[in-house]
Amino acid sequence: MSKHHESTHSNIHSSEPISKQDYADQLAVMQVELNTLARWVKYYNKRLLIIFEGRDTAGKGGVINAISATLNPRQCRVVALDKPNEIEKGQWYFQRYVPHLPAAGSIVLMDRSWYNRAGVEKVMGYCSADEVQHFLKQTPVFEKLLIDDGILLFKYWLTVDQVEQEHRLFDRLQDPLKRWKLSPVDLLARHRYAEYGQARDEMLQATHAKHAPWTLVNFNDQRLGRLTLIRHLLAQFPDCSVPDEWMDFPPLKGQPAVESFDGPLQPIQPYKLHAR
Amino acid sequence: MSKHHESTHSNIHSSEPISKQDYADQLAVMQVELNTLARWVKYYNKRLLIIFEGRDTAGKGGVINAISATLNPRQCRVVALDKPNEIEKGQWYFQRYVPHLPAAGSIVLMDRSWYNRAGVEKVMGYCSADEVQHFLKQTPVFEKLLIDDGILLFKYWLTVDQVEQEHRLFDRLQDPLKRWKLSPVDLLARHRYAEYGQARDEMLQATHAKHAPWTLVNFNDQRLGRLTLIRHLLAQFPDCSVPDEWMDFPPLKGQPAVESFDGPLQPIQPYKLHAR
Amino acid sequence: MSKHHESTHSNIHSSEPISKQDYADQLAVMQVELNTLARWVKYYNKRLLIIFEGRDTAGKGGVINAISATLNPRQCRVVALDKPNEIEKGQWYFQRYVPHLPAAGSIVLMDRSWYNRAGVEKVMGYCSADEVQHFLKQTPVFEKLLIDDGILLFKYWLTVDQVEQEHRLFDRLQDPLKRWKLSPVDLLARHRYAEYGQARDEMLQATHAKHAPWTLVNFNDQRLGRLTLIRHLLAQFPDCSVPDEWMDFPPLKGQPAVESFDGPLQPIQPYKLHAR
Amino acid sequence: MSKHHESTHSNIHSSEPISKQDYADQLAVMQVELNTLARWVKYYNKRLLIIFEGRDTAGKGGVINAISATLNPRQCRVVALDKPNEIEKGQWYFQRYVPHLPAAGSIVLMDRSWYNRAGVEKVMGYCSADEVQHFLKQTPVFEKLLIDDGILLFKYWLTVDQVEQEHRLFDRLQDPLKRWKLSPVDLLARHRYAEYGQARDEMLQATHAKHAPWTLVNFNDQRLGRLTLIRHLLAQFPDCSVPDEWMDFPPLKGQPAVESFDGPLQPIQPYKLHAR
Repeated sequence: MSKHHESTHSNIHSSEPISKQDYADQLAVMQVELNTLARWVKYYNKRLLIIFEGRDTAGKGGVINAISATLNPRQCRVVALDKPNEIEKGQWYFQRYVPHLPAAGSIVLMDRSWYNRAGVEKVMGYCSADEVQHFLKQTPVFEKLLIDDGILLFKYWLTVDQVEQEHRLFDRLQDPLKRWKLSPVDLLARHRYAEYGQARDEMLQATHAKHAPWTLVNFNDQRLGRLTLIRHLLAQFPDCSVPDEWMDFPPLKGQPAVESFDGPLQPIQPYKLHAR
Repeated sequence: MSKHHESTHSNIHSSEPISKQDYADQLAVMQVELNTLARWVKYYNKRLLIIFEGRDTAGKGGVINAISATLNPRQCRVVALDKPNEIEKGQWYFQRYVPHLPAAGSIVLMDRSWYNRAGVEKVMGYCSADEVQHFLKQTPVFEKLLIDDGILLFKYWLTVDQVEQEHRLFDRLQDPLKRWKLSPVDLLARHRYAEYGQARDEMLQATHAKHAPWTLVNFNDQRLGRLTLIRHLLAQFPDCSVPDEWMDFPPLKGQPAVESFDGPLQPIQPYKLHAR
Repeated sequence: MSKHHESTHSNIHSSEPISKQDYADQLAVMQVELNTLARWVKYYNKRLLIIFEGRDTAGKGGVINAISATLNPRQCRVVALDKPNEIEKGQWYFQRYVPHLPAAGSIVLMDRSWYNRAGVEKVMGYCSADEVQHFLKQTPVFEKLLIDDGILLFKYWLTVDQVEQEHRLFDRLQDPLKRWKLSPVDLLARHRYAEYGQARDEMLQATHAKHAPWTLVNFNDQRLGRLTLIRHLLAQFPDCSVPDEWMDFPPLKGQPAVESFDGPLQPIQPYKLHAR
Repeated sequence: MSKHHESTHSNIHSSEPISKQDYADQLAVMQVELNTLARWVKYYNKRLLIIFEGRDTAGKGGVINAISATLNPRQCRVVALDKPNEIEKGQWYFQRYVPHLPAAGSIVLMDRSWYNRAGVEKVMGYCSADEVQHFLKQTPVFEKLLIDDGILLFKYWLTVDQVEQEHRLFDRLQDPLKRWKLSPVDLLARHRYAEYGQARDEMLQATHAKHAPWTLVNFNDQRLGRLTLIRHLLAQFPDCSVPDEWMDFPPLKGQPAVESFDGPLQPIQPYKLHAR
């Protein structure tokens, strides 16, 4: 690692950690802006595709949740494909991804993507070196087709240092709420941190194009990483306000009703907080 | 509304509101149990299907999020179908739902479901009275086929009084984060609170079967409603522990690495909290 | 085999073979009627589902081709599903068939069907005895749901004697145009002719219902079998004429053009019959 | 039209018509070769994609049937997409075609294709001039991605003179077996023969690439056109034999059985040729 890189990186590390409350406050502001962006996408029939890549535990799922949490799930879909089945393995590599590209007025957040081939598949030996080279050659062409067609493509790569990755993997092992996030492959992959970095650098070199640039975001601090990424995304759309749709809300005629039930079924007894 | 019903209902209302902190604490406990349930589903290749129905604003989306938040999204899918397209309208009514039934080892949470026909479609006149009757006749038979095949089916109907519904609709009108939840149909539907109740009662009478019972949950207090529903669900699976899968976590060889980059691309500058 | 059965069967055998020309003439007449039926299906938005089952080599593909040959392939689809993949194996047995049910105005011809479970899967041991019993119990209920919904269901089982089956299998082995029809499973199955017959009888007993009857057709003579089956099918729709749609066909203005090409590309040289 | 073109064309016309018997004999030979090709595709996991374009009535369906008639329908699929629905209209133009690209070991015959945009959509005004230009720019790039990935792509354009087209349209109007082939759009399109030709020439110029050449075939004589096209296709694969799979066919043990039935169901009475 060059001196220059080290110093850049330590600058990044010097950011003070962000408190839970500050995070919540900042995120709330950004979520309003994300809703404005979503209205703009719908109003102008835009197609927005955001790819999230990065190391295991980097925080792809977390930032995707932060973005999608307050958006209409029918407009904003999260796409996280399983590994290919036998038939898909014998198809054009991009074939199984294409049906998930956004239609007019919609947003797709890809939790991992076709870049699997240049990352986990390469490092773990699930494909040949030729297949990786073929992928790195096809990808810029494929992405240019999409962009020339009007798809708005953003590609984020989430970085995380190994010491932090180790903490998070161990946490997943211990925490019953996170255990499902941990697969045997993850545990093998932790010994290949350096190879993953090399694969990423080769991938960046081949696929960081003017028409489809990569943006790297440091996720050593998850909260800070999320705010950084979302702010960066929003900054690409400096003005995306659209006219508000007026909706009439006249008063009800008569008193509001309460639930009543003609049959024998009634709501069940509510949960008792202190009676357990 | 009969006296008996009123009193039952006021019992329900007498529950004290639940604080944000209490809610979070209780939910955290239940989410651990939901993860245990999910492991059981996977381990024994069970299929779990949970249908969430109820009035607009009742809180279907909220409780679905609370359940799915800490589960593996590849195992636990949320299914919220759009209205049928022209081809689907000419098919067997259940045809477009069947592909979304859970496969072995998986959980499906349906945000609305085939019961649309007995609710919004009936009340808003999107289908004929004959079609409703046909639906009410076919549904118990269809559900019995699924249950006899081993699908674990749970059906929850979320109740909410009109005064609370009005507050929530108005809130959706005002809150930019919730505006997308409000459709013109919702605003028409608010004047038909009573008809929705009658439709629900007719639906309950026809489809509350021993093999596929309905459970009604009061969601006038959202937090309490969620805890009530989730606790009820968990109570159906009194013992669902499965053997833990052992995973080895040996120490890394050598020092943990930090991210370094061979090319010119570096992580972008982090978000500055106080520099806005 | 009882005396009664033998005599019935020999009656069938006594039919004189049908000549190629007679077959073509009769089929041509029936294909006009099939087109009338197809127009009726479209005009009244009917849904027509025809299941073709029977022994290997019985002639399912041949009669399906004879029916579909002159119909609009966008209206009349042939459905021949592969064996289930791993995910499908863990689903409700009918789940993978349901998306192929006919929509309004369309015809589906199933080359094999859900009845695989009571035939090849049972005899070759691809499923358990319990699964077969479960299938035989669910099928009449499932089919009744479809029929009550208005789907017009016809189920044909094609019979063929073993000596004829042997000829056809051997022919498939020899004929390069038919070799793909022969799988190793077929060659194993030929030794289980009797078991297939027993499985069929058990299946008929359980699923030959008033609302969804089976029709057996002798296909020892393929041409005769096809004409018998198609005539039987057509006889179920004694009057299915619909008003003709008028289309105007005014004369062209000016002389008809001949193909001409601005660029260098020209049609290739035509095939020379005697110059090979 | 230049002199050169005229003379080329009249050469083509000078071919003597081919008799029904000669056609059948020649086709039978070619179908054996097509089966050899199909085995080669399967053996080497090739992917073969053949696009059939051309004027209305040119004979796309007929030649596709001639090719697919003796092939395994599970290996060789015919893809004839309907016009795009509302959602598809808002997607990347190629998006709805991509799922139909051939997987390993399979053959796809496209009856019309993405080239609709440069033909019927352009001439009938279903898309804008900009969309046509965009299509003509994207297509060679898109096709190159497929070819570089190993897909074997062949593109045939079937020519027919207008006098012949008129005969065939009129025939479709009269013949109850062909009436479904005729749409109101076809009847409008017959007045735009010249515009279709111009659109074709512009399309050829933009998309006839070294890696994905077009082949034009004269289909004024349908039989001759089919033989010409199929022979041309086969000539691209001069040696595609693969080792034959040996299959054992031991004699049956015991006498071959005849069909017998335990229950009351018997084969129906066979069709009587002369009793109508």
